[in-house]
Amino acid sequence: MNITVVAKIVARKDAVEAVKAELLKLIAPTRKESGCIEYKLHQDNDDPAVFVFYETWESAASLGEHINTEHYKAYVGAVASMIEGKTVHKMTRIA
Amino acid sequence: MNITVVAKIVARKDAVEAVKAELLKLIAPTRKESGCIEYKLHQDNDDPAVFVFYETWESAASLGEHINTEHYKAYVGAVASMIEGKTVHKMTRIA
Repeated sequence: MNITVVAKIVARKDAVEAVKAELLKLIAPTRKESGCIEYKLHQDNDDPAVFVFYETWESAASLGEHINTEHYKAYVGAVASMIEGKTVHKMTRIA
Repeated sequence: MNITVVAKIVARKDAVEAVKAELLKLIAPTRKESGCIEYKLHQDNDDPAVFVFYETWESAASLGEHINTEHYKAYVGAVASMIEGKTVHKMTRIA
């Protein structure tokens, strides 16, 4: 069963462009992952420090594999000191 | 220019099904609106009281028209006393 992830990342005000660059690095390698159906990144129009990923994965297992990839782990390490917060919702599309 | 809306709605614990029913009522009429490109509803797998709309609109103007429709105003009135909170991000897709 597909799983949808809505992940909100809030960059520190002094690190918005650096975080954005790291987020953008994730796009190409993630879209190549076998279970990745959709992987879209957005920036808030009113607060540029707020980013949201909208992701669709074939299964919870393919999402689990994503979190263990080199590119994802490199991202996590790179932004650890540059983000204020992160919220991740694992969801089911109902309409 | 397209605008993406990521809207998170948190229902009161004793009103989850009622809020869900009102959210689902919005789907058909909203998708018929001329500026509506994408309108998807999700429920959190861990906390069923959390819902997220992922929406794409042709323009900020078409989003503004949506908020003034009868079906949207009816929804707002119907859930006013049944939701704990709502966050709306107006965003630009960057990847």
